[in-house]
Amino acid sequence: MRYSKGKKEFDRITNGEGEKMMQPLRDIAPDFERFIMEYPFGDLYTRTELDLKTRELITIASLTTLGYALPQLKLHIKAAIEAGCTKSELTETITQLSAYAGFPACINAMMVVKEVFDEMG
Amino acid sequence: MRYSKGKKEFDRITNGEGEKMMQPLRDIAPDFERFIMEYPFGDLYTRTELDLKTRELITIASLTTLGYALPQLKLHIKAAIEAGCTKSELTETITQLSAYAGFPACINAMMVVKEVFDEMG
Amino acid sequence: MRYSKGKKEFDRITNGEGEKMMQPLRDIAPDFERFIMEYPFGDLYTRTELDLKTRELITIASLTTLGYALPQLKLHIKAAIEAGCTKSELTETITQLSAYAGFPACINAMMVVKEVFDEMG
Amino acid sequence: MRYSKGKKEFDRITNGEGEKMMQPLRDIAPDFERFIMEYPFGDLYTRTELDLKTRELITIASLTTLGYALPQLKLHIKAAIEAGCTKSELTETITQLSAYAGFPACINAMMVVKEVFDEMG
Amino acid sequence: MRYSKGKKEFDRITNGEGEKMMQPLRDIAPDFERFIMEYPFGDLYTRTELDLKTRELITIASLTTLGYALPQLKLHIKAAIEAGCTKSELTETITQLSAYAGFPACINAMMVVKEVFDEMG
Amino acid sequence: MRYSKGKKEFDRITNGEGEKMMQPLRDIAPDFERFIMEYPFGDLYTRTELDLKTRELITIASLTTLGYALPQLKLHIKAAIEAGCTKSELTETITQLSAYAGFPACINAMMVVKEVFDEMG
Repeated sequence: MRYSKGKKEFDRITNGEGEKMMQPLRDIAPDFERFIMEYPFGDLYTRTELDLKTRELITIASLTTLGYALPQLKLHIKAAIEAGCTKSELTETITQLSAYAGFPACINAMMVVKEVFDEMG
Repeated sequence: MRYSKGKKEFDRITNGEGEKMMQPLRDIAPDFERFIMEYPFGDLYTRTELDLKTRELITIASLTTLGYALPQLKLHIKAAIEAGCTKSELTETITQLSAYAGFPACINAMMVVKEVFDEMG
Repeated sequence: MRYSKGKKEFDRITNGEGEKMMQPLRDIAPDFERFIMEYPFGDLYTRTELDLKTRELITIASLTTLGYALPQLKLHIKAAIEAGCTKSELTETITQLSAYAGFPACINAMMVVKEVFDEMG
Repeated sequence: MRYSKGKKEFDRITNGEGEKMMQPLRDIAPDFERFIMEYPFGDLYTRTELDLKTRELITIASLTTLGYALPQLKLHIKAAIEAGCTKSELTETITQLSAYAGFPACINAMMVVKEVFDEMG
Repeated sequence: MRYSKGKKEFDRITNGEGEKMMQPLRDIAPDFERFIMEYPFGDLYTRTELDLKTRELITIASLTTLGYALPQLKLHIKAAIEAGCTKSELTETITQLSAYAGFPACINAMMVVKEVFDEMG
Repeated sequence: MRYSKGKKEFDRITNGEGEKMMQPLRDIAPDFERFIMEYPFGDLYTRTELDLKTRELITIASLTTLGYALPQLKLHIKAAIEAGCTKSELTETITQLSAYAGFPACINAMMVVKEVFDEMG
């Protein structure tokens, strides 16, 4: 039940696009894919203490800071746009982090924002 | 002028409390302290693309993810409260990050939230 | 039920000592403490694909690499000893990581091993 | 002598496959390649305090946590398989780390496990 | 004025090559590109407390340690060569860091040094 | 022989002060302490491709970027001063890194520089 709740939330947030990232994980490690659906998407994303837009900006801030999480960053930038974030809010979030995570992490993250908007045309 | 603009913003955001973190930096490296006031506080915090509350939550997400930035985290948790963040929004932000930055980074950050609320009585 | 299963596992693994780290988290953010018991301890530690000793050494390797997770490292070094790890296996694990995480992360981790063995007399 | 001892161990552990990662390093910085053979492979991997399988799982835990070390992760996943690790032990190791290093680091590492098993057919 | 001072310094240091990394950033987030020119290149690189060669080696040490900053590393390796760094000083800098940042970060950085020298013929 | 060569270099560089950091490591894990003397200090610090002052600044840049390596940073700031680095070169090195490692890492590092100069009176 936590799985189906999380999978539904995941599909809704990623507008169905996230599934293609989960299929290879389900192939190699089905329990790992299940935990992703159950814990972050079933347990966390369904909570109401923060609105979805703020939750996505916070997630993007963490992924930008990690530096190596570009595939996940792309997914969550799309999810943030689905949740109503504007281009300006996304670029401003990453710009703000230059003071905390440094410019290289932010340049790489900004290039992912550009890639998403370029793909959307 | 960027310095005085940034210092004013810094004092406002940190409600005057930040100054005691800046004094030792000014003693050892005055230009470094000047750059902190000019760039993050003068250039970034004065922008209007994100409201201050969201800006602080994003900053807290980045500091939590870095893992080693507990003194800065304490300052920005206080600043977030000044900006109107509730306890619930702060603990939820850190809880959300358990999926991205891992539990140890979040446990350490949560203990700083507790410290701040304990000090506030 | 996941909570009580996880809490029981946590108390068993940490020989009751972990509770004092959880109490302050329960005070400030009860749902966060609940997620720690449910996900890592309820869902992960109860699995049988790896024996507990190996699971603890892997966890210690990750905590050493993060660099900032010394309180968690202390808890898991004790848990590893409870699970049957020898002093030599613990110091060898950290020594091995000098090639991957660098010497500073490993020196700080080794000092925690020393602290635990000093406390045990 | 430490070099030849390390190179022999490296070739044995990586089943001859590691050499193609070392050749370009030897071209640009021969002393650096020499240090890799001497220190991690000559000094560390030849020790007997941990069996090779455990040593590889620990190394994989550290590389997963670093997040950016995917080429090295691929080499050590292959080495772990050579040392007798099962697919289940590898995916379980990475699944365990989701609680410490976060899901993004583990998703990227799991994709490397999949790549290795796909290549092995 | 800080912008034009920084842009001039950036073009000088990167021998005009950096511009192609800045154009996409200017497209997606012009203020972010402006801050890069103003703060690191306008404010920091124009200072005289360290000579340019030392400044580039320090920057390369930081980028190597971050692990995920390979595009920025490539730019600064070229800039270091422009500033008079020899191949031997560059490979030695990265070799030195194996003890602090670990071998994987240094192997990835060394491959970028090789790429730059291969491109230069 | 590599040990005695490294230990001699270590004692020279740290002016005898480093020994008190090594004693507890020697107690808990003598081989680990031996590897520290042999590899970084015996193999790396005795090389001549970079002068000692530059080598220390590079090391300080890496330790600052790691963020969690404050005890090691203190040792190497003292070593850098022994090697002829001025206060201005040290604070400038850390200031430069604000653009790459972010301000929090640099603020924490700068406080260690202050601590060292305060202790020197």
